[in-house]
Amino acid sequence: MQESATTIAIGPDQPSSRLLEKAVLGAGAQIGPLAAADGLIWIGTPAGFPATLPASVRWVQLPAAGIEDYFAAGVFEAHPGVEFTSAAGAFAHSVAEHALMLLLAGVRYLPEHLRATSWQQREFFPHVGSLRGKTVTIVGAGGIGRALIPMLVPLGAHVIAVNRSGRPVTGPGIPGDVETVPADQLSRVWSHTDHVVVAAPATAQTRHLLGADELARLKPASWVINVARGSLIDTTALVDALARGVIGGAGLDVTDPEPLPDGHRLWTLPNAIITPHDSNPPQLRLAAFADHVGANVARFVAGEALLAPVDPRRGY
Amino acid sequence: MQESATTIAIGPDQPSSRLLEKAVLGAGAQIGPLAAADGLIWIGTPAGFPATLPASVRWVQLPAAGIEDYFAAGVFEAHPGVEFTSAAGAFAHSVAEHALMLLLAGVRYLPEHLRATSWQQREFFPHVGSLRGKTVTIVGAGGIGRALIPMLVPLGAHVIAVNRSGRPVTGPGIPGDVETVPADQLSRVWSHTDHVVVAAPATAQTRHLLGADELARLKPASWVINVARGSLIDTTALVDALARGVIGGAGLDVTDPEPLPDGHRLWTLPNAIITPHDSNPPQLRLAAFADHVGANVARFVAGEALLAPVDPRRGY
Repeated sequence: MQESATTIAIGPDQPSSRLLEKAVLGAGAQIGPLAAADGLIWIGTPAGFPATLPASVRWVQLPAAGIEDYFAAGVFEAHPGVEFTSAAGAFAHSVAEHALMLLLAGVRYLPEHLRATSWQQREFFPHVGSLRGKTVTIVGAGGIGRALIPMLVPLGAHVIAVNRSGRPVTGPGIPGDVETVPADQLSRVWSHTDHVVVAAPATAQTRHLLGADELARLKPASWVINVARGSLIDTTALVDALARGVIGGAGLDVTDPEPLPDGHRLWTLPNAIITPHDSNPPQLRLAAFADHVGANVARFVAGEALLAPVDPRRGY
Repeated sequence: MQESATTIAIGPDQPSSRLLEKAVLGAGAQIGPLAAADGLIWIGTPAGFPATLPASVRWVQLPAAGIEDYFAAGVFEAHPGVEFTSAAGAFAHSVAEHALMLLLAGVRYLPEHLRATSWQQREFFPHVGSLRGKTVTIVGAGGIGRALIPMLVPLGAHVIAVNRSGRPVTGPGIPGDVETVPADQLSRVWSHTDHVVVAAPATAQTRHLLGADELARLKPASWVINVARGSLIDTTALVDALARGVIGGAGLDVTDPEPLPDGHRLWTLPNAIITPHDSNPPQLRLAAFADHVGANVARFVAGEALLAPVDPRRGY
């Protein structure tokens, strides 16, 4: 081991995590005590964060994507010379994979297949679709949307990404020519959209972004996937569209209301797939965080810009 | 239009296909009558194939992947100076997409979700998995396997491709470092395999390739997907492994026996997903063929080697 190797501490001390240790070592750093560390991977609580840090510590990786509790605990104020990074974006992969699963299951008619107890090939043939050559509109080009695009491209889908600015969406695995539409022109995409994935934050502007009018402009084979927040879709309009066959179906990891109450009509519609907001389950989060840590340690070792830097003035 | 443009005929004359016409035009050729054509896209039957072709015709694209009926009809013998191409490989995309759908639906616990009529988030959390960081062994690296690999890579799965030679699998979208294992060393992959996709041809060597011994070496969360032929898996051993929880589940587009008879135990197991050999339904085949035609016309125009050339001496 070179004397000049970057030293990373993982804290609090116990229990440590083999996954995190592998991520740090794999990124070319060594693991050492906080007293001698250049960087700290924090896996504890905001309240437990050290009141003082050794002068050698230049960077702290926090374990959460939303870090309002660290602001409330005064962590950033207490360490003004230290660069902090959050886990923003680290957990998008699992949600994007879930969205892809719901979309493929819908397009390929899996719900009816699972109900069948006999070999109905001729009955099912006309209902089995493909994403190849279809246009998938992703509303929201944050972490989830940007993780989903590279998954859709090899399936031969054409992607329309919708973001606030309309500036072309970029990121690892995203082709340079992805069609990007600003949110204020969303109304012009519905008529040439085959399927919709809702992955935008819940705000006053995005509430009921998909209502009766928008659903009516989709196609009888269109699937609508929601992995963001239930409020982005008008549930009453969606139930009506599903029941009347205005669209092909809906795959919902989030609902409005949520939790979806027993006896709600969405539980009974054959073309609705409900998953109870479990697209990013706890046991997948550590592995995702370890990947994020590995990427950031590698950048730290190389002196490159870190992922998900915290800007204390902006509050995230 | 340049006088020198390549002319492609589509035959028999009626009914023509807008999709095929778009594919030909989009590849830089013009469409014209057979009498003036450089190439012919044939969408008729073997028996209906023209007894004579104009001397200008240098290439014929056939509409089938398996072309034994064209041999039987004497088509190749009758036109010794013409290059023929089949549609081999053209239909692999849909089957690969289906395999991906079955695998994702299994790993993410979709069958149980579809049976639920209440919000069981805590019960479902531990069962929702991800392909990220998991090893997917694809047995058979023909068209389906080669189409599936690029779909799995952006999901963060590690792929082991198994083929006869063990020579590294290559193709569009396939990373250069895909692990490739020769079929005669298949026994050494099971212990580090998370999921299996069976996509190999049915031969005497591949019969019951997955039996009780192989299934026992997989993991309790492993899913086994079969989109090839039912005979590659020992059904009795599979039913036993599914019922006892030796593996997580099975997604089967093909079965043994096939069709799967009413009342068969596979219809009743909650961790078996059955689709009745409908991964490549008729209505998707024309679009897939049009893509193949577009690729081959572009190669023909450019004077490049064509996809899926027929070698009359080898019989395929």
